[in-house]
Amino acid sequence: MFILIFYSLAENIFKERKIQLYMPKKQKKGAAAGKIRVIALGGLGEIGKNMTLVEYNDDMVVIDCGLGFPEDDMPGIDLVIQDISYLEANKDRLRAILLTHGHEDHIGAIPYLLRTINAPIYGTPLTLGIIRYKLEEHVLPWKPDLRVVNAGDTVKLGNIAAEFIHVNHSIADACAIALHTPLGTILHTGDFKLDTTPVDGEMMDIVRLGELGRRGVLLLMCESTNAERPGHTPSEKTVGTSLASVFATHPKKRVVIATFSSNVHRVQQIIDASAKHGRKVAITGRSMLNIVSAATELGYMKIPSGVLIDINDIKRFKPGEVTIITTGSQGEPMSALYRMAFSDHAQVSLDPNDVVVLSASAIPGNEKLVGRIINELSKNNIEVLHEAGAELHVSGHACQEEIKLMLALTKPRYYMPIHGESRHLSANRDLARYMGMKEKNIFISEIGAVLEIDTKGARIAGEVPAGKILVDGYGVGDVGNIVLRDRRHLSQDGLIVVVATVDTEERLLLSGPDIISRGFIYVREAEDLMEEVRAVAYDSIMSILERRERVDRIKLKRRVKDDLTKFLYSKTHRKPMILPVVMNI
Amino acid sequence: MFILIFYSLAENIFKERKIQLYMPKKQKKGAAAGKIRVIALGGLGEIGKNMTLVEYNDDMVVIDCGLGFPEDDMPGIDLVIQDISYLEANKDRLRAILLTHGHEDHIGAIPYLLRTINAPIYGTPLTLGIIRYKLEEHVLPWKPDLRVVNAGDTVKLGNIAAEFIHVNHSIADACAIALHTPLGTILHTGDFKLDTTPVDGEMMDIVRLGELGRRGVLLLMCESTNAERPGHTPSEKTVGTSLASVFATHPKKRVVIATFSSNVHRVQQIIDASAKHGRKVAITGRSMLNIVSAATELGYMKIPSGVLIDINDIKRFKPGEVTIITTGSQGEPMSALYRMAFSDHAQVSLDPNDVVVLSASAIPGNEKLVGRIINELSKNNIEVLHEAGAELHVSGHACQEEIKLMLALTKPRYYMPIHGESRHLSANRDLARYMGMKEKNIFISEIGAVLEIDTKGARIAGEVPAGKILVDGYGVGDVGNIVLRDRRHLSQDGLIVVVATVDTEERLLLSGPDIISRGFIYVREAEDLMEEVRAVAYDSIMSILERRERVDRIKLKRRVKDDLTKFLYSKTHRKPMILPVVMNI
Repeated sequence: MFILIFYSLAENIFKERKIQLYMPKKQKKGAAAGKIRVIALGGLGEIGKNMTLVEYNDDMVVIDCGLGFPEDDMPGIDLVIQDISYLEANKDRLRAILLTHGHEDHIGAIPYLLRTINAPIYGTPLTLGIIRYKLEEHVLPWKPDLRVVNAGDTVKLGNIAAEFIHVNHSIADACAIALHTPLGTILHTGDFKLDTTPVDGEMMDIVRLGELGRRGVLLLMCESTNAERPGHTPSEKTVGTSLASVFATHPKKRVVIATFSSNVHRVQQIIDASAKHGRKVAITGRSMLNIVSAATELGYMKIPSGVLIDINDIKRFKPGEVTIITTGSQGEPMSALYRMAFSDHAQVSLDPNDVVVLSASAIPGNEKLVGRIINELSKNNIEVLHEAGAELHVSGHACQEEIKLMLALTKPRYYMPIHGESRHLSANRDLARYMGMKEKNIFISEIGAVLEIDTKGARIAGEVPAGKILVDGYGVGDVGNIVLRDRRHLSQDGLIVVVATVDTEERLLLSGPDIISRGFIYVREAEDLMEEVRAVAYDSIMSILERRERVDRIKLKRRVKDDLTKFLYSKTHRKPMILPVVMNI
Repeated sequence: MFILIFYSLAENIFKERKIQLYMPKKQKKGAAAGKIRVIALGGLGEIGKNMTLVEYNDDMVVIDCGLGFPEDDMPGIDLVIQDISYLEANKDRLRAILLTHGHEDHIGAIPYLLRTINAPIYGTPLTLGIIRYKLEEHVLPWKPDLRVVNAGDTVKLGNIAAEFIHVNHSIADACAIALHTPLGTILHTGDFKLDTTPVDGEMMDIVRLGELGRRGVLLLMCESTNAERPGHTPSEKTVGTSLASVFATHPKKRVVIATFSSNVHRVQQIIDASAKHGRKVAITGRSMLNIVSAATELGYMKIPSGVLIDINDIKRFKPGEVTIITTGSQGEPMSALYRMAFSDHAQVSLDPNDVVVLSASAIPGNEKLVGRIINELSKNNIEVLHEAGAELHVSGHACQEEIKLMLALTKPRYYMPIHGESRHLSANRDLARYMGMKEKNIFISEIGAVLEIDTKGARIAGEVPAGKILVDGYGVGDVGNIVLRDRRHLSQDGLIVVVATVDTEERLLLSGPDIISRGFIYVREAEDLMEEVRAVAYDSIMSILERRERVDRIKLKRRVKDDLTKFLYSKTHRKPMILPVVMNI
């Protein structure tokens, strides 16, 4: 079993007393000089890759540093990160990286940022715990400067004071961040929901948010993930109730529950409900094991003694006495659940004595992967409970009524929807309009665009470099549009390589043309076609060699390519990539 | 404008008087000799590609002949069709192809079937109208024998009598098919829902289904698409109400509505609601134009005079006076809606005076394509109404209560869920169990498996060839697993071609190695790496040439491939396809 060893957290504890803030109730002319600049390098017009820069004069802070996942038209790409060239050019002004919570789309790009930038990183204990684990897989030029804060803490960063405010979310220890500047307060919600019955007992700190609103919030940046959904997001506790009823209605069956490993409170509820129903709990999946160890050590999870058993011991118990918590709720092909479903898990083999619960909804794009697991289990007569049925999962993001509450509490002068595709940002803007905000005070920005605020007002003013940097294996940024275009082309119709050796002086074809194809057609059953291809290529080469002018290898290659493309399209309606290789001797 | 000219339908009208059926109330021993064999060649364990064979002794009929769409792991594939080798080997016994309705997943493979098989094709007028249009794009060895039937008709096919029974669905003129055999009646539901307020006034013929049930249904094959969804599918009429309220709440805006062209009743409702609100209607998108012409000519659609205008004339009217009906509800990249959204439509340019309505839900796998359109419209401040909001679309498939009704009406002795992935078939089986059917009388079959029924009972007995035939361009079946594997490999990390000319006799490297890469890395910024690649390849070649033994070109290529694969993985963590080409002179 892989158990994560945490550094002692004590050595990094950074705690500063609350500072007295300059917080003007109204901005008077000339009361504060200077400018605020707000720049998102990710998270606008896209899901994930969240990163927002806030500058006040010479002081700059970054909120979050997440990664994005590749689109369908980016074959072979592992991750997408921000273009941070602006940050690199201004790193002397960078005072800190502030993290709202420990999800990948908020912290996943930190190992890449740390290759060139070494600023202090502030986050809550669980957030930094997850980062430490992540950083073990990377070699960095320096020891990262991780500084633990807790909700309620404020840290002074030049002329900016950053205050961490507790919010509810689908991971423990999540915060909104208020940046107090001489010009006013900027509030960044991070990801949040309002949970009046949270598993850890701590509701989002709406009192503090309301206080800030009374004193005056200059700019609110609010997440938009669920801005299209009416109503409220249900409490995490409702899932606990549903899960308990699964145990009650399946007393003789082993219950296998897949969920996000980072949802510490979900895992806690599964363990509690299991204990209540006299079940032992076994855990499988590397990230699940890691997070449970970490969360237990840090005090975010309490496991009743005697409940946890090793996955190797599950066969000592009857099916009705065991719960298995596993990764794989997104259908990931190497996950523990996937391996169980396809009879490839070392310790768990499923049969009709099992009921599998998917306590998660499929992230857009993962529907088919999740469906593959459901189908395989159904085929083998294993009961699967998933979204379509009972309340087995709730979102971690604010629905429309919660966004309205955030607006009503904080009464911002300016509003900037963040975290979402254009549709989500627009829906969020519509909510602010509905609340009575003036159109001119709402800013739907773009990555790289600069929102400038001073005593005269707010406006989009200029832009900085921003974009998508693709990570493929060890390579960061070495795959761009041309490479992707070629990959897409190759995936559609494969390729044909035409090789010939010529003597350009003597105008002789010495060898070839040889034809090699991959991903185009099943060659053994298309020998006639391949022979025709050779003949077309031969004619193309000879027609150039037989001309009187100088033999130009580029012309020769272009001729082969054009002739073969035309020939193959007329014969097969396909356009494989044609790669002519002409060796000269 | 592209207008489809229909053959006069009269010449093909085929109508036979109702036949007297032998319909035993109970099967008595020895009452009827012979065997029924039911074989699905598609539609089980998959969505689409629907095709079911039913044999009674020497008579065989086929129900539906649809196409399937490629999975994510089939890059470059256009369509998937059935392996019909069993059908080809038994075509002398094939009496007819019977069609339930005109959707692609039920009729789309007919042009491919007709390449080798020429059996009479029976279907309702709209179904055959759509097929005629489709067949115009194909060159066939014979004139297809299309025979029009209407709901209520029965046709005699050897010892099988096929009765067409009206059902509701998201296309007009849909039928269930009852096959009356000397052994009993086999009922195939096709796709259906129960609509008590259908747009054309004709509710599913539950009276006839109930009659069949009273007399005794031997086997019911029932579709499973929505078997996971509780409750009833709402009536098509509810969409009419929602659309009318869109017109009422947007009196000043032009309304652009995207929907499936084949949903004749939906289009009718849009036209009616537009007329009622004093709007003209313009139509765009090739398939939408075709279907509206066809449906109008065949009497399935009634357009109030003066309402339809040419798409070129929309600018003569104020936004509030125009409705545009368009294709593209699935986000198809060349569709009319896509072109509008991305400012590439010849006649329609959208702006904030438009409201776009997506009157369709995204078919699984199309979510991201649809999302791309919603995002682009949102970015340009164009209001989009889609599923997440009001009831702008309803399904055409039976939910759980309607499947239960079908079971309760027909009381089949044996039950076989059809049309769905394993999860849907299982959910459908669970409904039959819930209704009290015995496990041994329910058959979850697989494509190619033979369900055999005789007076002694029913059982899975043997199998026939079945599978997925991939269509890529003009090629049918010439792309298989090896080609697909290569395409996937090429799409992930691209390829590197290593070319060298050697003299194997003299053990000389005459030219090269030259390195060509595509889809691997941006070469201009990786010149050092490419130089290293060349050096590794050079060493590999020389190490073979310098050996004393005979130079073996296969060994030489393998060596280059192995060495480079290892080198590149260690350097880049990528595994491009390595294609060594060694020319011998």
